[in-house]
Amino acid sequence: MSAYPFLKGHGTENDFVLLPDHDGSIHGDLTEERVRALCDRRAGIGGDGVMRVIRTQALAEFDQAVLELHEPDPEWFMDYRNSDGSLSEMCGNGIRVFARHLAESGLIDTSGPVAIGTRAGIRTVTFSDAGEITVDMGRPVLGRDSEVAVPPLAWKATNIDMGNPHAVAFVESLDQAGTLLEEPDYDHAVYPEGVNVEFVVRRGSQHVAMRVHERGSGETRSCGTGACAVMVASAIKDRYAPAGSTPAGDVTYRVDVPGGELSITWTRTDRVLLTGPAVMVAEGITDL
Amino acid sequence: MSAYPFLKGHGTENDFVLLPDHDGSIHGDLTEERVRALCDRRAGIGGDGVMRVIRTQALAEFDQAVLELHEPDPEWFMDYRNSDGSLSEMCGNGIRVFARHLAESGLIDTSGPVAIGTRAGIRTVTFSDAGEITVDMGRPVLGRDSEVAVPPLAWKATNIDMGNPHAVAFVESLDQAGTLLEEPDYDHAVYPEGVNVEFVVRRGSQHVAMRVHERGSGETRSCGTGACAVMVASAIKDRYAPAGSTPAGDVTYRVDVPGGELSITWTRTDRVLLTGPAVMVAEGITDL
Repeated sequence: MSAYPFLKGHGTENDFVLLPDHDGSIHGDLTEERVRALCDRRAGIGGDGVMRVIRTQALAEFDQAVLELHEPDPEWFMDYRNSDGSLSEMCGNGIRVFARHLAESGLIDTSGPVAIGTRAGIRTVTFSDAGEITVDMGRPVLGRDSEVAVPPLAWKATNIDMGNPHAVAFVESLDQAGTLLEEPDYDHAVYPEGVNVEFVVRRGSQHVAMRVHERGSGETRSCGTGACAVMVASAIKDRYAPAGSTPAGDVTYRVDVPGGELSITWTRTDRVLLTGPAVMVAEGITDL
Repeated sequence: MSAYPFLKGHGTENDFVLLPDHDGSIHGDLTEERVRALCDRRAGIGGDGVMRVIRTQALAEFDQAVLELHEPDPEWFMDYRNSDGSLSEMCGNGIRVFARHLAESGLIDTSGPVAIGTRAGIRTVTFSDAGEITVDMGRPVLGRDSEVAVPPLAWKATNIDMGNPHAVAFVESLDQAGTLLEEPDYDHAVYPEGVNVEFVVRRGSQHVAMRVHERGSGETRSCGTGACAVMVASAIKDRYAPAGSTPAGDVTYRVDVPGGELSITWTRTDRVLLTGPAVMVAEGITDL
């Protein structure tokens, strides 16, 4: 294969390689091997994942099964792949970078909400005058609380599902989580598919800081769904909403992650809105 | 600053960001901060170092002190910076990538040896028909042997200086070096400036494999000078040369590093020639 275009960008240091492929003609053969080569941080470009930028209509021609997951309304589809080459449904930091690229390339009208297709369904993004991007991450689903542990320490963990499972533990200090080189212990009966574990400390009124261990990836600089789960667990703990209910009015928290700052709103209509930065850092061509 | 060109490449997974700046007009202000931003593996492009591609004559206009280190003969100067922004003298994997870029851009004649300026003086590279590049890494200097340890294990270590200091330990298995998350213990009286520690196993006749802990960087995928030190220590151990002398004839070893394979020749004239791959993976523009 000859050289093809790419871009690189990040949201709170969760970073991605973007592949413009508007009509699906370049990467009809986007193999797992190529995704791994692109994401390799030494022998490739480096990234936590790859996002192919493709028109939904073009996607339909070779991947009808994916299209059937959602209405064909969105013009653009975020074809997200994990760094190991596997398919993924959604990424809260990734979709902001995806939207930033569409905006900088003049491919969308940013004056109002923009619908983007993903394997998890349609996601809506909005652009603020301050340069940040907000994503509607959907509804939080509370599950049965359990316990997580970094021996010899253990904590009660709030169970929040944001499309993927989270266990949120409030700790005295983020150092208590240790090196996080190994996965924290968790209750496999509560999380049979594995879980992302968040450790949270209070920094002030409606302001928390967190670290996260993502299943399959280890500790990361940021996790969009994890920050949303942390915000919801914090709002419940702070009595903005009774467990199992929604806030009486919209409530917003600042959530500090190792890679930056996010702002998260839980609405009285039970939506979680994730707001944060998205930065394009380079563009060019590669033949990886 | 507006957008400027870059390339990315690697040699045995030691990876670099290259900045073409032929007349020195783009990065007269190449700050430590910008180098760190470029090398950041999440918020930047990512690399073990930055190499500015500049004509030696252009360098003279703003960095006379550097020019005085060597004759002004080489047309091109490898202005190498470590990922922390500090200046560095030479990099055996980096200079192959630097030469590969010059060749692919038609900036040098690859039919014969090419002299390249570095802060360590002039280095000569040659291109093989098989696509590999050879660098003359200079003369090895033997020092006083000492001991290195990854407690509870300890080994005798051969002391080889290749412009920077090395302690080469022959181990039973590369696993014996452990995680290498911490620096191995070494004799500070022998290495007052610190040391790169190599662990070596024999794989066959004139064939060894190694891991390396680089001072200031931790374990890396490859280290050019380290591989040269390992080859010289192995050739002495295998009695190709009496300690303190040179081989009777040129002797060549294959040295496997975690990021690939290198071929190293110690000549009867006491030069060490490092041969290996160099691959360009991407090029584009950035405004980091």
